[in-house]
Amino acid sequence: MSSDKIQDLISKSIAYASDNYGAPPDFNVLLNPRLIPEQYFGFSRGEMPVIRVAGGRAQDALRSLLVLEAALGLGQIIIVHHTDCGMMHLTDAGIKAFFKEKCPHKSADLDAMDFDAIVDGDLQKSVRTDIGLLKESPYFSKDLVVTGMIFDMNTGKVQMVN
Amino acid sequence: MSSDKIQDLISKSIAYASDNYGAPPDFNVLLNPRLIPEQYFGFSRGEMPVIRVAGGRAQDALRSLLVLEAALGLGQIIIVHHTDCGMMHLTDAGIKAFFKEKCPHKSADLDAMDFDAIVDGDLQKSVRTDIGLLKESPYFSKDLVVTGMIFDMNTGKVQMVN
Repeated sequence: MSSDKIQDLISKSIAYASDNYGAPPDFNVLLNPRLIPEQYFGFSRGEMPVIRVAGGRAQDALRSLLVLEAALGLGQIIIVHHTDCGMMHLTDAGIKAFFKEKCPHKSADLDAMDFDAIVDGDLQKSVRTDIGLLKESPYFSKDLVVTGMIFDMNTGKVQMVN
Repeated sequence: MSSDKIQDLISKSIAYASDNYGAPPDFNVLLNPRLIPEQYFGFSRGEMPVIRVAGGRAQDALRSLLVLEAALGLGQIIIVHHTDCGMMHLTDAGIKAFFKEKCPHKSADLDAMDFDAIVDGDLQKSVRTDIGLLKESPYFSKDLVVTGMIFDMNTGKVQMVN
């Protein structure tokens, strides 16, 4: 995808923000899965595969990305994390403690999991970490373009992460 | 979520199908991530968390579901697999062979992964397997309601899996 196309996506998301974010959004649901990129990027059904996982973290999306790579070949991945994400308010240790209390017999399984919470609410860092993970992954082409963005839940606008 | 609410979702998806599926959809993108449930269920941004992973498989969505359970508590999960899914045309062995040829040094990592392809194109079975996985999981409440559906890419309609 060319930088013109990226610019086009950003333009569409700005138009969407202007049309839909006159008032602050409703915050009833607190997870990354509340973003609907087809709306804010203005692309249509089937135009672009979308993976939605908690926090938008690349490690957790890896299985889906490998399937896409094997099936279609990936030229470009756009990572979008968002402000006020639930994963900024949780910690790996907190999530594990919650489930260990409920299921003490699953402690070893839980310790083996990585919930990949967004540490210190630093979205620039979480996006950069995930760009690095995909750029350095041996599974994808060296030509893979990985773009990082932060979606502002208050304004509906995206900001590029360099 | 009551069965009335499920019925309401199905009604909305039928209205969506009727409005949007006069002609067969464009099949340029072949992955589960092409479904936009906010459209076919008619719910709005933020109303319902949505997880989108290849094949819509529950095992791969587990990290996101545990985050949701810890953050909000889950009362109901709706699993939607769809016809003509890319994961019906791929196999675990095929995906692993593809990447092992590219990255022979990652063979052990690949063997440890489960791509959870939909075997024999049997969507009834893949949905039932995933309902069972979540219903039997010790991490969720015994009262968790898990509903399974198959989305028909040709008609845009959903069918319940019992």
